[in-house]
Amino acid sequence: MKKHNFSAGPCILPQSVMQKASEAVINFNNLDLSLIEISHRSKDFVDVMENARSLALEHLGLQNKGYQALFLQGGASTQFLMAAYNLLENKAAYLNTGTWSSKAIKEAKLFGEIIEVASSKNANFNYIPKEYVIPSDADYFHCTSNNTIFGTQMKEFPEVNMPLVCDMSSDIFSRVLDFSKFDLIYAGAQKNMGPAGTTLVVVKEDILGKISRTIPSMLDYTVHIGKDSMFNTPPVFAVYVSMLTLEWLKEKGGVAAAEKLNNEKASLLYTEIDRNSLFEGFVANKEDRSNMNATFNLTSESHKDAFDSLWKNAGINGLEGHRSVGGYRASMYNALPIESVQVLVDVMKELERKG
Amino acid sequence: MKKHNFSAGPCILPQSVMQKASEAVINFNNLDLSLIEISHRSKDFVDVMENARSLALEHLGLQNKGYQALFLQGGASTQFLMAAYNLLENKAAYLNTGTWSSKAIKEAKLFGEIIEVASSKNANFNYIPKEYVIPSDADYFHCTSNNTIFGTQMKEFPEVNMPLVCDMSSDIFSRVLDFSKFDLIYAGAQKNMGPAGTTLVVVKEDILGKISRTIPSMLDYTVHIGKDSMFNTPPVFAVYVSMLTLEWLKEKGGVAAAEKLNNEKASLLYTEIDRNSLFEGFVANKEDRSNMNATFNLTSESHKDAFDSLWKNAGINGLEGHRSVGGYRASMYNALPIESVQVLVDVMKELERKG
Ligand SMILES: Cc1ncc(COP(=O)(O)O)c(C=O)c1O
Ligand SMILES: Cc1ncc(COP(=O)(O)O)c(C=O)c1O
Ligand SMILES: [Mg+2]
Ligand SMILES: [Mg+2]
Ligand SMILES: [Mg+2]
Ligand SMILES: [Mg+2]
Repeated sequence: MKKHNFSAGPCILPQSVMQKASEAVINFNNLDLSLIEISHRSKDFVDVMENARSLALEHLGLQNKGYQALFLQGGASTQFLMAAYNLLENKAAYLNTGTWSSKAIKEAKLFGEIIEVASSKNANFNYIPKEYVIPSDADYFHCTSNNTIFGTQMKEFPEVNMPLVCDMSSDIFSRVLDFSKFDLIYAGAQKNMGPAGTTLVVVKEDILGKISRTIPSMLDYTVHIGKDSMFNTPPVFAVYVSMLTLEWLKEKGGVAAAEKLNNEKASLLYTEIDRNSLFEGFVANKEDRSNMNATFNLTSESHKDAFDSLWKNAGINGLEGHRSVGGYRASMYNALPIESVQVLVDVMKELERKG
Repeated sequence: MKKHNFSAGPCILPQSVMQKASEAVINFNNLDLSLIEISHRSKDFVDVMENARSLALEHLGLQNKGYQALFLQGGASTQFLMAAYNLLENKAAYLNTGTWSSKAIKEAKLFGEIIEVASSKNANFNYIPKEYVIPSDADYFHCTSNNTIFGTQMKEFPEVNMPLVCDMSSDIFSRVLDFSKFDLIYAGAQKNMGPAGTTLVVVKEDILGKISRTIPSMLDYTVHIGKDSMFNTPPVFAVYVSMLTLEWLKEKGGVAAAEKLNNEKASLLYTEIDRNSLFEGFVANKEDRSNMNATFNLTSESHKDAFDSLWKNAGINGLEGHRSVGGYRASMYNALPIESVQVLVDVMKELERKG
């Protein structure tokens, strides 16, 4: 049975990408060797890495603007500490919009003073704070563009006179932004870009090398840049599948086309959440709703069993909300077809008819 | 054409493992979902992680002996710094037997005083130093069991009264040792265990938590142990393929059976290197020769073109030596069939006949 995969990450990737990845595990580039058994220094793999890095910059409109793209290991969680290791001399400013921002703050505190400019923690992170002051002497400002768990998304970013650092793990490549406003962007691959196991780091080179602390090689962006993202053995399979997904995105019309479809999918689902009296959205302000992760609840828990069996029978996967929010979370990443969202909406309507 | 894959890493894995991995990318566990699109918190993947961790301990004979196995990201290179971050309070002792030991020393120096107890650097690392004194007040002793680049292998390990730390990246699971002598073992997967993208860490829990420094979460073994190696999103595909390879090893009779076959393969090749006057081994003392990576040279460069075209025509892949050694390197990891070694030996004999 065809599955409608709303998993929050790792998550759905394009079918054509899965097909090519599966074949490459047996025979890559007609080498009569598997992708995963060749040297990462071979031309075949070096080409993959170069292609992936250049596609990432191309999709963000950051080619020839002083940026470098790296495919590292360690997940976005390692970036929480690498960002601070590489950039934090005295103090840094953080906006706290959820679990991931909180974790980023926790790790950064080991390296300097952290000013939390605002937090929506008291409201279980159900909105994005907008009125806050960023101390002008901070080494950088850090924010999380999309809160995967709570389903909020920043629609605007502050103008700052310091490096702007953003964790875009769960909405990278999903919408058009002026990415040149950012100096360091990082994103675990396992949402819009590829499988778990690699992390995209896009960094403007001129913000690096300004720190007095000595940085261990594996944590030093400059070291990875100097070795074209191959300082040590890269996560070959994850980089290859990310490259395939970035190629697929290009064929589909790039980030602008993805944004259009993502808007349609989100609008379809949120309209039903609002219209249908059995459901309500989790996020307080509609303007803060995430186009990637829609969080919602039943207005009465008495419908839970009926709803759960309806969506499971419809072939829907991964709709459970995160334990810190409860309810449901529909993650609608780039590769999710609008047909899958329609199936979910139909199920919600069916519950209403039966309920 | 069937390839004989002597690549030093990433390297050959069992064909049956490739087949299963390829299928799982399309449909995992009959879920009608890909392995790489399901939640890492799903029962299907949690089982994979648990199975991989327990197989690793089982193969090393370390179950129920106070050890934990972790599958982390970052490669063995990240372990160079994590070992020191977690264990180095004042000073540590390192044996320098090659490029990888040297890199481990470089990273550790950021965290304390490093005593290099011995080094074979002056002889381009063509032997394993054996006479050295380890200061009894060191926090730990670190060594590299097998030098992938130079083709040397430690056959004996010193008795120490402190934690024994070993980088076993290129010979883990290849031979029987009393692994309970070691307190921290780490190994990048991409030799005997799986694809690039995950690193096995086996650590005796009682050596942890003795350091005064605060450790960032992602670099803290204790944090990863507390979360059953799932503190953050693990490198799903690499862990799964490692699990499959560890299952394959078990079916084949485990480490003891692998060792027997590895001895046969190494003996077949080294006998020919010694017998054939056109070739000579790189390693100075025969007792230090690696069973995993056999390094050798032509006795006269005039045979280079002839030899290179002979082995390439025979379907051999990855025989070039590392640039710091030159010549040739035949890596004979667990999954390499003895038939491939025979093909190489036949080619060496053919060169002799023609030469
Ligand atoms: C916004 C955000 N940041 C960071 C992370 C952590 O990523 P990783 O598990 O790759 O460390 C996640 C994971 O879901 C996330 O959604
Ligand atoms: C013995 C040894 N240690 C460490 C490494 C570095 O491993 P990684 O590339 O996973 O960081 C290698 C790589 O070949 C190795 O052979
Ligand atoms: Mg969050
Ligand atoms: Mg409603
Ligand atoms: Mg070496
Ligand atoms: Mg000879």
